[in-house]
Amino acid sequence: MPLRTTEHTERTEQSAVTVLGLGPMGRSLAGAFLDAGLRTTVWNRTPGRDRELVARGAVSARSAEEAAASRLTVVCVVNYDAADTILRRAEVTDALKGSTVVNLTADTPDRARDAAAWAAEHGVRYLDGAIMTPVTTIGTPAAVFLHSGPEDLYREHQPVLQALGGTHTHLGDDIGRAAAYDIALLDVFWTAMAGYAHALAVARAEGISARELAPFAKGIGDILPPLFEELAEDMDDGTYSGEDNPLTSAASSMAHIVRTSEAHGIDAGVMRAAEGLARRAIGQGHGADGFMRIAELLGGRQ
Amino acid sequence: MPLRTTEHTERTEQSAVTVLGLGPMGRSLAGAFLDAGLRTTVWNRTPGRDRELVARGAVSARSAEEAAASRLTVVCVVNYDAADTILRRAEVTDALKGSTVVNLTADTPDRARDAAAWAAEHGVRYLDGAIMTPVTTIGTPAAVFLHSGPEDLYREHQPVLQALGGTHTHLGDDIGRAAAYDIALLDVFWTAMAGYAHALAVARAEGISARELAPFAKGIGDILPPLFEELAEDMDDGTYSGEDNPLTSAASSMAHIVRTSEAHGIDAGVMRAAEGLARRAIGQGHGADGFMRIAELLGGRQ
Repeated sequence: MPLRTTEHTERTEQSAVTVLGLGPMGRSLAGAFLDAGLRTTVWNRTPGRDRELVARGAVSARSAEEAAASRLTVVCVVNYDAADTILRRAEVTDALKGSTVVNLTADTPDRARDAAAWAAEHGVRYLDGAIMTPVTTIGTPAAVFLHSGPEDLYREHQPVLQALGGTHTHLGDDIGRAAAYDIALLDVFWTAMAGYAHALAVARAEGISARELAPFAKGIGDILPPLFEELAEDMDDGTYSGEDNPLTSAASSMAHIVRTSEAHGIDAGVMRAAEGLARRAIGQGHGADGFMRIAELLGGRQ
Repeated sequence: MPLRTTEHTERTEQSAVTVLGLGPMGRSLAGAFLDAGLRTTVWNRTPGRDRELVARGAVSARSAEEAAASRLTVVCVVNYDAADTILRRAEVTDALKGSTVVNLTADTPDRARDAAAWAAEHGVRYLDGAIMTPVTTIGTPAAVFLHSGPEDLYREHQPVLQALGGTHTHLGDDIGRAAAYDIALLDVFWTAMAGYAHALAVARAEGISARELAPFAKGIGDILPPLFEELAEDMDDGTYSGEDNPLTSAASSMAHIVRTSEAHGIDAGVMRAAEGLARRAIGQGHGADGFMRIAELLGGRQ
């Protein structure tokens, strides 16, 4: 009887959710769970990151295996090497058995698939996810989460995940799908950011401050979202219309950018690589096509 | 007397505006002038491009020197090599003497400065400009034009230029300024486009159609305009805050993108170049800074 009582007590005291990894994003996730009134256990490999969360009511676990006792464990660390180091220790794997891991760590689709195989082998229920918006959006309507893995498992934990705020989209049972979307979307984001950093360097060399350029850069940014939607149809349909803006014009612009930056001693490696793709497409006879034609030439075993 | 009459007739019949260069953009510009009721002369090196414009009332000039008789000549060709080939022929230069050229051809700031020097030498009044929006925006409120060169000259021709629709901004007397803004803004645009094309290639290899990715890509696109404004302050102030998103995270994301695309046999040269910049900044001890720090490392003689 006492044993049973203890067991019962342990069950009722079992945390609703655990967050493993307390970088800026992990701390935001845990904070959102706490704000939603969920009993939240936190753990980080480097100690001392949980002080503020504990002050807000979080339970600080002394070890990953202790933290892994919740029904739902959310993992958010730098990459899957870090996640695997935590999760694949025998003590932690044992503690996770029968419970669910939602891995919000960003990495490649292959790593997500590998983690799902490991989870299946060890009786751990597994979902993969990706966070598409900055730390500051967590717990707000602006947050965007992508999920993949078994739909019933996702539906089961959706109410708890909803505490993170924003929009949650289940992309399908293929466990790699959230990571694949994540990779493609971060590709857009970081490439654009590299372009902006370069543009600001070129502007500065031309005596234009970032603040002077910004309203116009915002204008260029505003063009992109509707253009992305329009070009997606172009891509799926294989039309690549270049009527108003052929690849030859794009390549000419790119060459001007390379020339101007290099005249100022500014590295133009990113634009040189992009221009190279445009020139390759032109060389293959696609000069009158639209820019998205380069997607075809990038290769890809399908 | 007959001679004088002829002269007088020629003067009153002198076009309000000439458009040299009838590519998609040049045709749009001429069309907007016609729509505004301006007497418009058009010319293109390759004949036959003016049929629709002539049907709408444009005067088709038999030669560039005949076309160059207007008070205002707008030039819009592929680049300054093409513009110079047209403008710097003695007959054309003579015809332009005393009148104004607004060169809306895209090229580098150096070429704009060189063209202004040529114009000054030959008694041609000269303004440089850049068109920041697609062909379809011309004549609509969405068009964005940048101008640079002598402000009084700009003010003199502003009423005619206004017929092109949209927003016109005079950036200052430095003739290279419109081209410098143009280069920086196209740098943002084409780099982002290269990122999107690459993202669509990676998505396709992962079994995700462009249409499936597009709503989320639009979401990423929506993040950029406010972020551009925020990061501009970071850049001017040299703060490079990486609190929520340090360079180390960016480099980690970039490595995932490179790995995923190359695993599919997709060229990752653009992202490799961008990742290289991030790694260089990290190697120099800036790993905790924000991404814009790479702008400092791109070089630039100021």
